[in-house]
Amino acid sequence: MIRHIVPFRLTHAHGSAAEADFLVANRRLADIPGVENFELLRQVSPKSNFDFCVSMAFADQAAYEAYNTHPAHVDFVQTRWLVDVADFMEIDLTE
Amino acid sequence: MIRHIVPFRLTHAHGSAAEADFLVANRRLADIPGVENFELLRQVSPKSNFDFCVSMAFADQAAYEAYNTHPAHVDFVQTRWLVDVADFMEIDLTE
Repeated sequence: MIRHIVPFRLTHAHGSAAEADFLVANRRLADIPGVENFELLRQVSPKSNFDFCVSMAFADQAAYEAYNTHPAHVDFVQTRWLVDVADFMEIDLTE
Repeated sequence: MIRHIVPFRLTHAHGSAAEADFLVANRRLADIPGVENFELLRQVSPKSNFDFCVSMAFADQAAYEAYNTHPAHVDFVQTRWLVDVADFMEIDLTE
């Protein structure tokens, strides 16, 4: 199991319609085959500048790669992530 | 529930005795009251420079603060974390 964790901050104002619209689109990643335990969480530590965090899990590297190359993910990255996200980082965790 | 996630990198070489010793000490944080779902994981994304990650959960902010000020945590930070850790970041996630 690989846990994929991506804290991020949007270009949009808190509580804006643009923020809400992005979050709806972001949650649709949960429907991509192989995505398990999808969560869209708030980042609340004052020691971090990120406001949100996506957490999801994959059974193995093959499932992860299938997600990465899935058209719905590629489209989301191109049309939403690269447009709406001001800053992010990625970590992948395993036992 | 608050999930506290801390990816980090040690000053020690991979596979060294110093690394193993630190990880044993790190795992003892799981014994501090209020710490739930403690995990010490490997960070495997090539997009990140961190090598490990601690993940733990707290029922609420009071439990989190009790952990932060617990003598075993304060001692670990002073005698191990500030000595052995080369780089880290913290995120706290909640619904």
